[in-house]
Amino acid sequence: MFKKLSAEFLGTFWLVFGGCGSAVLAAAFPEVGIGHLGVAFAFGLTVLTMAYTVGGISGGHFNPAVSVGLTVAGKFPASSLAPYIAAQVVGAVVAAVVLYLIASGKTGFQAGGFASNGYGDLSPGGYSLTAALVAEVVLTAFFLIIILGSTHGRAPVGFAPIAIGLGLTLIHLISIPVTNTSVNPARSTGVALFADTAALSQLWLFWLAPVLGAVIGAVIWKVVGEDD
Amino acid sequence: MFKKLSAEFLGTFWLVFGGCGSAVLAAAFPEVGIGHLGVAFAFGLTVLTMAYTVGGISGGHFNPAVSVGLTVAGKFPASSLAPYIAAQVVGAVVAAVVLYLIASGKTGFQAGGFASNGYGDLSPGGYSLTAALVAEVVLTAFFLIIILGSTHGRAPVGFAPIAIGLGLTLIHLISIPVTNTSVNPARSTGVALFADTAALSQLWLFWLAPVLGAVIGAVIWKVVGEDD
Amino acid sequence: MFKKLSAEFLGTFWLVFGGCGSAVLAAAFPEVGIGHLGVAFAFGLTVLTMAYTVGGISGGHFNPAVSVGLTVAGKFPASSLAPYIAAQVVGAVVAAVVLYLIASGKTGFQAGGFASNGYGDLSPGGYSLTAALVAEVVLTAFFLIIILGSTHGRAPVGFAPIAIGLGLTLIHLISIPVTNTSVNPARSTGVALFADTAALSQLWLFWLAPVLGAVIGAVIWKVVGEDD
Amino acid sequence: MFKKLSAEFLGTFWLVFGGCGSAVLAAAFPEVGIGHLGVAFAFGLTVLTMAYTVGGISGGHFNPAVSVGLTVAGKFPASSLAPYIAAQVVGAVVAAVVLYLIASGKTGFQAGGFASNGYGDLSPGGYSLTAALVAEVVLTAFFLIIILGSTHGRAPVGFAPIAIGLGLTLIHLISIPVTNTSVNPARSTGVALFADTAALSQLWLFWLAPVLGAVIGAVIWKVVGEDD
Repeated sequence: MFKKLSAEFLGTFWLVFGGCGSAVLAAAFPEVGIGHLGVAFAFGLTVLTMAYTVGGISGGHFNPAVSVGLTVAGKFPASSLAPYIAAQVVGAVVAAVVLYLIASGKTGFQAGGFASNGYGDLSPGGYSLTAALVAEVVLTAFFLIIILGSTHGRAPVGFAPIAIGLGLTLIHLISIPVTNTSVNPARSTGVALFADTAALSQLWLFWLAPVLGAVIGAVIWKVVGEDD
Repeated sequence: MFKKLSAEFLGTFWLVFGGCGSAVLAAAFPEVGIGHLGVAFAFGLTVLTMAYTVGGISGGHFNPAVSVGLTVAGKFPASSLAPYIAAQVVGAVVAAVVLYLIASGKTGFQAGGFASNGYGDLSPGGYSLTAALVAEVVLTAFFLIIILGSTHGRAPVGFAPIAIGLGLTLIHLISIPVTNTSVNPARSTGVALFADTAALSQLWLFWLAPVLGAVIGAVIWKVVGEDD
Repeated sequence: MFKKLSAEFLGTFWLVFGGCGSAVLAAAFPEVGIGHLGVAFAFGLTVLTMAYTVGGISGGHFNPAVSVGLTVAGKFPASSLAPYIAAQVVGAVVAAVVLYLIASGKTGFQAGGFASNGYGDLSPGGYSLTAALVAEVVLTAFFLIIILGSTHGRAPVGFAPIAIGLGLTLIHLISIPVTNTSVNPARSTGVALFADTAALSQLWLFWLAPVLGAVIGAVIWKVVGEDD
Repeated sequence: MFKKLSAEFLGTFWLVFGGCGSAVLAAAFPEVGIGHLGVAFAFGLTVLTMAYTVGGISGGHFNPAVSVGLTVAGKFPASSLAPYIAAQVVGAVVAAVVLYLIASGKTGFQAGGFASNGYGDLSPGGYSLTAALVAEVVLTAFFLIIILGSTHGRAPVGFAPIAIGLGLTLIHLISIPVTNTSVNPARSTGVALFADTAALSQLWLFWLAPVLGAVIGAVIWKVVGEDD
């Protein structure tokens, strides 16, 4: 279990450090910044790389909503949920600390949103709570469907990290303007602690919606994807 | 058949929600928008992810033109065409509804073209009907050739979703300015219903051209790619 | 041989239609154009997709320099060189015709360089003949090394189209400003016929340099990569 | 050993020529430049392509920090370290020479930073020495973890070059604004020789931090990833 929790810690650290790090440090660099497209690739590639690296150790969840969804789908023991989620949240928070240390090493640095998630006034594009809720639920549901389908015995072996990682890239391509894209409560928690905004007061949505979406996705998969 | 149609519904939902969603929500975000390049990746990644996820269930068409082309190529039974196409169109329409729900959750939202396809006045770059027709026919023909070739027994196993998904990305890289890129009548239908423009009056072309192109592609493949 | 030449025709058509098409139609679209990055992906993805599609038929050269290099490396019979190169050039020219037909379907269309290659005044960034020559030789040499290495029995099976296709993307990421990137005499020939510039008068360089680079790459590989 | 050192020379040449070449030649091209996102893909694709091409010959390090880290992890003999590092540095320097030859073939060329790495005044975004040190250590540590994990017997066969190459892309997406991204002392050395800035005076950091990070990454992997 130590190795599994360490793997989840490392993977979630990398997801937050790489994904949120690219957003904080590199997205809006004048003229040549990577933009939302680069941030979307960064998030996806954190999962692609770590799924190939430690997927064989812990299963490569890096996300409390994924762990919950896999439990609902019958692929992960409920007894391991609490330690997995703890390791993920700790990894996310430590990543935010290290990212803050780097980002603040620039004259005139201001944390601002610090890549946190939000709705209403804190949505990058000003989207409502309802829009944010629907987006996060639908996207997390499909994220779980992709995870369950691409790791199913029916799918070709070895390609799941590509499908899952680039699936997360796709999710960001759609929804950064809506909520800054969560689909991952640990990711939302880590950076919300450092935001200069009211991000923490909206954090509840980014636990509720991804977990709800993950449960829905797992149920859909059981109906559509599992053999009777 | 229920599982197959559900898979086609989910895949086409994801294609329209993800591809058109990225276009509506994220393409033109100030300074850091994903642009046509991001939209091209989004469309391609919807197919890459869902082909790995449900390709083993339904074959992963997500597109009436693909189903027709595969029938012409002798890879899909004509008797299944109607239900497949129905599931695809329903999936596309439901995706457009959900996308509209999210997109309208922003003050000052206007549907505009809503990522619909068009020629002439409704072409993003002002391309003529002839140019639109030629582009859609040629691109759908090659899409079918890629599908038939990369899933052929001669090709390495497991890579087809990468070739097909990134092939759709490539198709968008070429032709978004011409027609906003269809090559998929279901995708065109779903969002045309919500456009504030005359997109519905041009929808006929985005059934005709992709289906015609798919038939041509299937015939070319039978000549070039199948063993005698 | 008919199937092989048809496959080379289709693959080179797709390379020119997709790669040059993205450059002509989509690169500079206002605000959301795909830029050189999108064009680089387009060229690479034409080869990735077609190598998975018809690589098992013809070997998937789509490029006279590649055919020559493979002959020098002892992987392709010299007797097949002439028909392969003919099929590639015809495919490239037909692609340019179809692309011209589409591109001219826009009011105010001007061919301009039409994605042709050039040095000096015709180099996108104003690079000299020497710079153009060195770039094309070095890049084509590495292109051949990648092709020979990733298809070698020592490399994992099935991944070569990814390495080769994304290798071509990489080559474009480096050198579009220098020569608009050739490394492929057929690609250069097809579009030079339609350019409003003096591109045809510089076409000799884009046969000479890629072929020279391909020969050098093949020789390097024989020294470094083949077992004694 | 000659073939192995040649492979490391070629791979590191390609990494510097392609990665730094894209930065120098193509990143800031007016309107359609590839930006930091394109440079990030270029660096990653040099490693992806060459790992498939010569990975089976030399192991595909192309980076002194990687060679050191693999030695610490017990995957590479210490006796081969010196010749490998020499081949890598020579490859990087020769690549910088060829790149300089091309880049200077443009009227008004000025070397400027020539894609060199830096902190403080020489950091693209003005990040401090501490921020640069932390970023390079953390990123190189994870680069080693990805290399060790994705090539482990537990991971699916053949995918490691994708994980490692796109991992390097991800690393650049995060950190180009901080240090211009090194994680590779050979890459830093090659171009520092040609910079018009004080890059050489800061080169020590880009040997120290990547090597330190690689050692840390190797130790973490031994604890988390190796069987007891």
